Amino acid sequence: MNDPGASTAIRILCSPVTAAELRQRMPQAGVCGTYTFVHPTPEAPQPDAEIGFVSRDITGASTKFDVKPDTAMYYEALLHAPHLQWVHIHSAGLDRPIYIDLQARGVTVTNSAGHNARSVAQMALGGVLALSRHLPRFMAAQREARWLPPFEQAPPRDLDGQVAVIVGWGAIGQHIAQVLQALAVRVRVARHDASRAAQGADITVAYDAVGTLLADADWLILACPISDATLRLIDAEALARLPAHAHLINVSRGTVVDEAALIDALTHGRLAGAYLDVFEQEPLPADSPLWRLDNVIATPHSSGHSSGNRERVLQMFLRELARREAAGLLRE
Amino acid sequence: MNDPGASTAIRILCSPVTAAELRQRMPQAGVCGTYTFVHPTPEAPQPDAEIGFVSRDITGASTKFDVKPDTAMYYEALLHAPHLQWVHIHSAGLDRPIYIDLQARGVTVTNSAGHNARSVAQMALGGVLALSRHLPRFMAAQREARWLPPFEQAPPRDLDGQVAVIVGWGAIGQHIAQVLQALAVRVRVARHDASRAAQGADITVAYDAVGTLLADADWLILACPISDATLRLIDAEALARLPAHAHLINVSRGTVVDEAALIDALTHGRLAGAYLDVFEQEPLPADSPLWRLDNVIATPHSSGHSSGNRERVLQMFLRELARREAAGLLRE
Repeated sequence: MNDPGASTAIRILCSPVTAAELRQRMPQAGVCGTYTFVHPTPEAPQPDAEIGFVSRDITGASTKFDVKPDTAMYYEALLHAPHLQWVHIHSAGLDRPIYIDLQARGVTVTNSAGHNARSVAQMALGGVLALSRHLPRFMAAQREARWLPPFEQAPPRDLDGQVAVIVGWGAIGQHIAQVLQALAVRVRVARHDASRAAQGADITVAYDAVGTLLADADWLILACPISDATLRLIDAEALARLPAHAHLINVSRGTVVDEAALIDALTHGRLAGAYLDVFEQEPLPADSPLWRLDNVIATPHSSGHSSGNRERVLQMFLRELARREAAGLLRE
Repeated sequence: MNDPGASTAIRILCSPVTAAELRQRMPQAGVCGTYTFVHPTPEAPQPDAEIGFVSRDITGASTKFDVKPDTAMYYEALLHAPHLQWVHIHSAGLDRPIYIDLQARGVTVTNSAGHNARSVAQMALGGVLALSRHLPRFMAAQREARWLPPFEQAPPRDLDGQVAVIVGWGAIGQHIAQVLQALAVRVRVARHDASRAAQGADITVAYDAVGTLLADADWLILACPISDATLRLIDAEALARLPAHAHLINVSRGTVVDEAALIDALTHGRLAGAYLDVFEQEPLPADSPLWRLDNVIATPHSSGHSSGNRERVLQMFLRELARREAAGLLRE
């Protein structure tokens, strides 16, 4: 062949913009092999490749439930690439059907767990402080240029000494706990492996025992991955255990909560309020009461969105690529 | 006299509800003297007293600028009580004209500094996180049941590693700093006495050198008392030193900032946004642009409002009363 490089190169299926960024960073990243970059086009929709990299620009405006055509083109290419061995994805969650299908085919899927843990935690903490300090009520009054004299309002409850139950003890849950402790909020944790005590927590239990922590919880904060152990973990019964002054924060996945039961509790004063970034259906349907409840802050699955994400995900991919090279895991 | 207790008792001018609470708590508070409680009425507007206690229910819906009749009745009584020696007030700030007038008369005025420091700090931190994570934009979309796909929005800037300049190093500023540090935000401090370095801060300067800290500040957080040194400290020139992506947080006093210059900077994109709990005029006039700017969160001087305040202020008054008894400061 005239192009020996191309014949021995490992193919990476990724977006053209990502290819340019990777090419630029490879020399500094300890990546030694020869790579070519391919991407699907309407004319050539199924390029073969050994490696796939699903960066944020590929998923674009798609959600787990609503895959846009540009995203679907990449998904189809990955699903049909005969030599695909490994796919790296920009998100922490592995719950989209495409990743389950790829794993069923024997493709290794690695995620970018932790790349956006700080911003997800910050969003959860923003929700805690906004709800604690009655920000939705103040912002509603602000829209009407209306001064609400503090003395005429029920005062916010002292946050100091309140109890937060954090479900999930990954990078997100741990950062939330660290900041809550600086705010003098007591932390209890439900996690996958309760044999390891969560550092700084008063109590650590397994996911299925979360109900035992709720009777005097002020905050229930969901920061776990979705799995068989967490699907609908917070059902009507769990919600009923919470005091009426408690708030729910969900930056995990919508299906960790029974959303209908949550709406019922919020509507009937059995729960003081909620900050929700995730929903059973995304986009949240326009007729959902969650948009309209005045004790709910609803954001569009945006807690992980932050300016440094793209660079962190590129570096995670390159580190994993270098590791796989060094370990001899990449076959041409 | 038939009532020897009354003849030797020290008189405390306070609201009837506060009198009942004080009576109940005095035995446990180490207060040994004999006290009677008086309050002004329309029929007897000027009872004499040695001690005054201005609890939150006395100031009620009054502001520094708009004193309601019920509040004014107490102020008049204090100003004219011939034997008044000491007045304790529920707030941290001593800037209302009544307190200045009382001090000019030789009356000692003690404040309740610190009783609400935690909630003021929480409100400031809630403002930081809400603005950092674009909550006003999301809450505006929520009102229209509109899902803003994250990928179509400019991402929030990574909060980690940003720089916050905190003006004022009392209990409020210190708690803000402690939590910001848990959020990996770097802290610089402007304080009254710069010869004492603020713990954990990269740099400590005096108030009048705050301008030297602003060129690469992401957050300017005002948590200082109002004084000659802080009045209009943040003027047009100081605001102009801030980067256009910076935000201002004010939980201090409105007059620490040149409000017209602030509105100008916010309106013309020279400042990214602000969270303001205090204003030059309170209530904030309905025609102020601060109500309507979409990069501003405006709350009605409420950051100090919290459920435990009343009890903390009562305990502060009782501790001070016991201290004055023990020191022989109370003359009948």
